[in-house]
Amino acid sequence: MALQRTHTCGELRKSDTGKDVVLNGWVDTRRDLGGVIFIDLRDRYGKTQIVFSPQDNPQAHALADQLRSEFVIGIKGVVEERDSVNINPNMPTGEVDIRCSELVIYSKAETTPFEIKDDTKANDDIRLKYRYLDLRRPSMQDKLMMRSKAYQVIRTFFNENEFCEVETPVLMKSTPEGARDYLVPSRVNPGKFFALPQSPQTYKQILMVSGMDRYFQIVKCFRDEDLRADRQPEFTQVDVEMSFVNEEDIYALMEGLVKKTWKELVGADVQTPFPRMTYDHAMNTYGSDKPDTRFGCEFVDFSDIVGKSEFRVFSKTVADGGIVAGFVVPGQGVLGRGVMDRLTDRAKTELGAGGLIYIKNNKDEVYSSVGKFVSEDITKEMVAKSGANEGDLLLILAGNRADVLNQLGGLRLIVGHEYNLIDYNKYNFLWVTDFPLVEYSAEDGRYYAMHHPFTSPKEEDIDKMETDPLSIRARAYDLVLNGSELGGGSIRIHNRDVQSKMFRLLGIGEEEAQEKFGFLLGAFKYGAPPHGGIALGLDRLMMLITGAKSLREVIAFPKNQKAQSLMDNCPDVVETKQLDELHIQLKPMVK
Amino acid sequence: MALQRTHTCGELRKSDTGKDVVLNGWVDTRRDLGGVIFIDLRDRYGKTQIVFSPQDNPQAHALADQLRSEFVIGIKGVVEERDSVNINPNMPTGEVDIRCSELVIYSKAETTPFEIKDDTKANDDIRLKYRYLDLRRPSMQDKLMMRSKAYQVIRTFFNENEFCEVETPVLMKSTPEGARDYLVPSRVNPGKFFALPQSPQTYKQILMVSGMDRYFQIVKCFRDEDLRADRQPEFTQVDVEMSFVNEEDIYALMEGLVKKTWKELVGADVQTPFPRMTYDHAMNTYGSDKPDTRFGCEFVDFSDIVGKSEFRVFSKTVADGGIVAGFVVPGQGVLGRGVMDRLTDRAKTELGAGGLIYIKNNKDEVYSSVGKFVSEDITKEMVAKSGANEGDLLLILAGNRADVLNQLGGLRLIVGHEYNLIDYNKYNFLWVTDFPLVEYSAEDGRYYAMHHPFTSPKEEDIDKMETDPLSIRARAYDLVLNGSELGGGSIRIHNRDVQSKMFRLLGIGEEEAQEKFGFLLGAFKYGAPPHGGIALGLDRLMMLITGAKSLREVIAFPKNQKAQSLMDNCPDVVETKQLDELHIQLKPMVK
Repeated sequence: MALQRTHTCGELRKSDTGKDVVLNGWVDTRRDLGGVIFIDLRDRYGKTQIVFSPQDNPQAHALADQLRSEFVIGIKGVVEERDSVNINPNMPTGEVDIRCSELVIYSKAETTPFEIKDDTKANDDIRLKYRYLDLRRPSMQDKLMMRSKAYQVIRTFFNENEFCEVETPVLMKSTPEGARDYLVPSRVNPGKFFALPQSPQTYKQILMVSGMDRYFQIVKCFRDEDLRADRQPEFTQVDVEMSFVNEEDIYALMEGLVKKTWKELVGADVQTPFPRMTYDHAMNTYGSDKPDTRFGCEFVDFSDIVGKSEFRVFSKTVADGGIVAGFVVPGQGVLGRGVMDRLTDRAKTELGAGGLIYIKNNKDEVYSSVGKFVSEDITKEMVAKSGANEGDLLLILAGNRADVLNQLGGLRLIVGHEYNLIDYNKYNFLWVTDFPLVEYSAEDGRYYAMHHPFTSPKEEDIDKMETDPLSIRARAYDLVLNGSELGGGSIRIHNRDVQSKMFRLLGIGEEEAQEKFGFLLGAFKYGAPPHGGIALGLDRLMMLITGAKSLREVIAFPKNQKAQSLMDNCPDVVETKQLDELHIQLKPMVK
Repeated sequence: MALQRTHTCGELRKSDTGKDVVLNGWVDTRRDLGGVIFIDLRDRYGKTQIVFSPQDNPQAHALADQLRSEFVIGIKGVVEERDSVNINPNMPTGEVDIRCSELVIYSKAETTPFEIKDDTKANDDIRLKYRYLDLRRPSMQDKLMMRSKAYQVIRTFFNENEFCEVETPVLMKSTPEGARDYLVPSRVNPGKFFALPQSPQTYKQILMVSGMDRYFQIVKCFRDEDLRADRQPEFTQVDVEMSFVNEEDIYALMEGLVKKTWKELVGADVQTPFPRMTYDHAMNTYGSDKPDTRFGCEFVDFSDIVGKSEFRVFSKTVADGGIVAGFVVPGQGVLGRGVMDRLTDRAKTELGAGGLIYIKNNKDEVYSSVGKFVSEDITKEMVAKSGANEGDLLLILAGNRADVLNQLGGLRLIVGHEYNLIDYNKYNFLWVTDFPLVEYSAEDGRYYAMHHPFTSPKEEDIDKMETDPLSIRARAYDLVLNGSELGGGSIRIHNRDVQSKMFRLLGIGEEEAQEKFGFLLGAFKYGAPPHGGIALGLDRLMMLITGAKSLREVIAFPKNQKAQSLMDNCPDVVETKQLDELHIQLKPMVK
């Protein structure tokens, strides 16, 4: 290291004028103006302009002539104030430049495959392959710094609240529930496998049984599943568990965490406590268990009004036990036929709706797309019930209840984004509560836990476990922000009898339960406290807080949608020798 | 949750007398004294005595009669001051007890397989199997809390020093160097495997190339190797990398970290800067690259004195190029024949020495165990050179240089512990520097990197890479505490030419280098800053700072020496269906 830096590239100000300084960094831009060379030198902290003049030091000037973008250099020089006409008000260092007296080139650079600047046109694959260049872009560095700050804010919060941070194992036992485990063969235990955790759920419950009282961890979790656009095979979770608590304790704690995080990271004052909504209300009103409450468009059920209509789509749907429901789009009564046709198409193709019915409640005319079949009285009654104002549009779907709610939910989001109903500066947090304990899979002929098998049913619903499982509400809750699930959790079962009932309900036999969860059930024999917890998805939280469009923007080295890292080309084939040592071999491919 | 706690079991004091309180916790002990029942209620924060008297509440008293150790309960009651005779000065809550008015049993407990108390006699396997009970012991909870505090102290330090915390991938590419990778088959990429990181080395270097400037992470790393007593298959590392630095920057940073950590965790004032010692000096003087400098016993080379002796063990050794060397054990000239015989046995069996020669430098007699063969003059010359005082013992070995240094190193530690030469209250930190860049394996007929292939040689030694590799010193350093390696690191190669030379030296061909490290070499094409870093073993650090005897004492859920978790019985066999999905199968066992 020839030149030990005295300052970073974001640090020097007018008040530093006259100082001898050393800076290190990357050549961001280089201009040659009539023999004088100007360099913007860049590091994580900012940019500073360096001036090479043949008068100051002919040798440095000659060397500077070789400089190209992304060369790594060190320079020594004197800080000088810029002439007022040359001041750059857009750079914090814009009032000074450094007159260079010495230049050292640490490392040259080939021409980069894309330009290092924030508004890159490089596609995702190129950016991922050259992630080390992509991460040089200031906007990416800002996101990583923001994430770094988030870790510290979150951990400090839990520390101040007497939580104990515990590292749970990454090499653990494979469990049968939920999405797929990554398996890890053990060399020293032939034929046996570890699994990577989908969540440290059982360990954090064990920690409660062991009396740790309050646990948290920011922890990597893993799922080997087909990737959707917004999933990563390894993801980071803020994991929390507490003893001797109820739902209110968890809500209050997490609201405190969110309030502090938003304040310190983006300076926003989040209002607490957060509103709460039952799962049933969310589904019936927004067609989603994670409703975006930044805008209205709440659903209205017209079944009672249209059941008597002569229009068979309406009357038959209702007669068959389905519903006719819709919502008001404020001010969009003006939309023309073409737009409505395209919206109808989207409802059909993207949401699987049979069709889209609409009413335009305009001053001069109340127009119904099914006006030929439905009496004006019924149309007006519908408008009245919907609360639509003059100039509003009413969108309506008919069909079986679950489908209509689901499709309306999708339609509501499309319309919300398309017609500027959403205030993107809002942070609408929401607790969704009272989830069903189980759901029934007709395909598999069995019940599945809606959260996981350790979720406690509500006290007052326990007696329905053998009679009416679908009506049981769980002590489970999700934290929702602007229509995204930030996380979820529950009060757990700490009573062995209830746990046994739960396993029975899920068709998990005594033996299987012992085999898979024996250690947790065993632990419960020796005194388990009432306990509960929650886990937040940190990647999604960072995505929402930075306004990023993808999880990949807030993860330093993400995988692509095929669970591959394009930068270091993994996963990859390995040598047979390595597999031999692990006592496994590839399965012959069936062609 | 019937009873919402108002205080923890470690919180109440005399000044709380008269307050209505609710406590939750585990029944630690129960005594029945003439109809009045006394419970010590325990949680993570401490213990509080609860009194159940039939007069106060006959119902609670009757229920309290059922209580057994480790039942989980909630109690409501009034804080009362104890009579002066009943004050327990050993408990922070010992001046009060709670007169119970209401008792709720949350969970009963079977008799635990061992008693929940600090001085347990349970063996390691039982403790690991019932880890949830083992972790109830206050000494274990203290260690976990200490570790939790350490995370926060360490992270705060790095944050205050403008480091960016970045999570590097757990699912990464398998690399060929070093110990064995855990492999992870990919379900969605048939026939391909991820590896778990043995260290995030390449990623942290990539982060430097991407301009992150200062990176740190507390990160899990993995090694699938035969386990020694002091290894775990997954271990935690404090990982650091910095750009534009030299060794002095790393030393100063880490000394600041250690100073702060020791101050905040144990209240000790660690002196900085730490002493430094070259690898050669450490090997020649202590026979170890991680010398315990809490005591002396530095080696003295007697070869020049004894080369001329008629005693063939001495003269032939020296003539053959070996050495005769030893060290002084202060005040142990009094040791008798039997003790010396046992020490000789240990030197032979544990250290592989051919024999042990000794001189007792006592007032009445200078006794040499080889006095029959060696002249008194030579013996006295040896004593003089050794600097032994009256009453001291001199231990001497002869043989080839490497063996003697190694054996003397082992002997020195045995003697140091056995004869109380070590002040166990001392924290002796030490930088060991100037490691060799490579070592030669006669067996494999090739050179291996002493640290890793990215370690930079010293500038002035680079020209020896093709002529005299074994004499090249690396810019590598280890941090040693009391004879244990806390961590190590190096200034890295950032120049592609030097990196190519290094690969050539290690016999890593162009193609293999591209295949395995192509992305790092590729990154270096686009401007790499000079950089370096270090990694500390957090588990070992916690072991040393808490005075624990094993890494298992400072890890919540450790594996045993067969890399198994006895609590949840993993690794374990998995269903063939799972392997099918991963496109692998077990290799048939050769019987």
